[in-house]
Amino acid sequence: MVPPITSEPVTTPFEFDAATDLTRVTGVDDRSSGTVHAGAVHDGWDIMGNANGGYLMALAAAGMRDTSGRPDPVTVTAHYLAPGPPGPATVHSDVVKQGKRFATVTGSLRSAERELIRVMGVFGDLASTADGWTRMDGAPPDLPPVEECVVRSASQGVAPAIMDRLDIRLRPGDDAFQRGAKTGSASITGWFSFADGRPIDTLSLLLVADAFPPPVFNIDIPAGWVPTIELTVHVRAVPAPGPVACRFATRFIQGGYLEEDGEIWDSTGRLVAMSRQLALVPL
Amino acid sequence: MVPPITSEPVTTPFEFDAATDLTRVTGVDDRSSGTVHAGAVHDGWDIMGNANGGYLMALAAAGMRDTSGRPDPVTVTAHYLAPGPPGPATVHSDVVKQGKRFATVTGSLRSAERELIRVMGVFGDLASTADGWTRMDGAPPDLPPVEECVVRSASQGVAPAIMDRLDIRLRPGDDAFQRGAKTGSASITGWFSFADGRPIDTLSLLLVADAFPPPVFNIDIPAGWVPTIELTVHVRAVPAPGPVACRFATRFIQGGYLEEDGEIWDSTGRLVAMSRQLALVPL
Repeated sequence: MVPPITSEPVTTPFEFDAATDLTRVTGVDDRSSGTVHAGAVHDGWDIMGNANGGYLMALAAAGMRDTSGRPDPVTVTAHYLAPGPPGPATVHSDVVKQGKRFATVTGSLRSAERELIRVMGVFGDLASTADGWTRMDGAPPDLPPVEECVVRSASQGVAPAIMDRLDIRLRPGDDAFQRGAKTGSASITGWFSFADGRPIDTLSLLLVADAFPPPVFNIDIPAGWVPTIELTVHVRAVPAPGPVACRFATRFIQGGYLEEDGEIWDSTGRLVAMSRQLALVPL
Repeated sequence: MVPPITSEPVTTPFEFDAATDLTRVTGVDDRSSGTVHAGAVHDGWDIMGNANGGYLMALAAAGMRDTSGRPDPVTVTAHYLAPGPPGPATVHSDVVKQGKRFATVTGSLRSAERELIRVMGVFGDLASTADGWTRMDGAPPDLPPVEECVVRSASQGVAPAIMDRLDIRLRPGDDAFQRGAKTGSASITGWFSFADGRPIDTLSLLLVADAFPPPVFNIDIPAGWVPTIELTVHVRAVPAPGPVACRFATRFIQGGYLEEDGEIWDSTGRLVAMSRQLALVPL
């Protein structure tokens, strides 16, 4: 049999694009006047069966971004309501305000009749921003080249499935927790790339903001899992090609709560995102 | 005429309580199944006629807190949609999730048919939290006693009306911007109290988080007003009696955006709140 002539080359989408692929649906949700997108919480983006919080935020933001009609998330806040096992999911979004420069959008990611996260975001066009006044009191983390850093691997006997999708390289020393040791400093720095080479865009920075192991793994705290209550990511610029340099740190553990702050810098040394989450210290 | 016998002493409420006083209303909003509270954006909490962003957040959170049935805001995010002149206002709130430990609530503050802010928050009971694991990589700002600090006053010819309600004392030196000078460091520290002596509770920490002058006033940037896009406050503990020590700083000004980070510590040296806002650099 003669194979059919195809006019388009067969391409495999990048894994992150497949995992955040959504179809805009209309009229399926009688309870809301908003926009509905259908997709799925994909398998393989989880830690012990529950999808990574940054991935869930990116999935919801993909729908919200489409609803906003703008190219970039600027500030996105997610509240985590229920763990997200793999399965069909919908993103429900509503435009709160369409302004000249920004669109403010609320979103809700639901799976199996359960709301996983509630999200609020501002979307805009970060590429069109004039540089204007620049003043940086801080710099990217001091990292050796990617190939001299340590591959993120299993720790405490657990190899999160998501690690197959991501290429995270830790600064030598910051990988102590992977070797059953501790640095004594609640800080982890390293490079982030996608394992399949997908370029890092503003949407995927939402994933990066929650992709590293919790920095408290490097101090003597009896915590294997740090449940996020709320995560806010400020996307500050469109990343240049190449891996991003990341710094995550926890400064204050008190009363059962901790914050985790992140900075993400692109390969040209430009700040592309800041993140902060409030999380629970497991008792 | 004999004055009537009153069984209750006549008391004047504290200004902040009057300004965030709300009455729960039912059935006035056909568009929503949520809870509606009626009140007002009060005069005297503004900068040049527009209400302070922290005050607006506290006003919305007062309604959301009542709806939540919990005593304390734990993490609250507000998106600023329109300036808030004084006038009657309503807070519309909906419970997203009532959990064992937290209630997640969305809120909307509206005035004169206009939405001023959209809010998302988690409410809980911070007084009941066990201390557990504590580790603090940071400390309150090093401030002289309140009486040795400098009263926040008019700067750049502008005396914000809200300054009559608040007793803000700046660390000597950090008040440079009030004298037409600059420290060269985008940082302002100082003490916060209410002018009428109202105790600082968890609700009012939302106001404190946006009550100081922008730290960029102390660097050479041509900005008189720094419009907030989004403000997130993590309330980390119930404050002890007395003034709170505050540190606000901006590290990264880039592409027309800046972040402002805050730490608020109580009189016993306990961290009671952290804040971060994304704001625009006026061109």
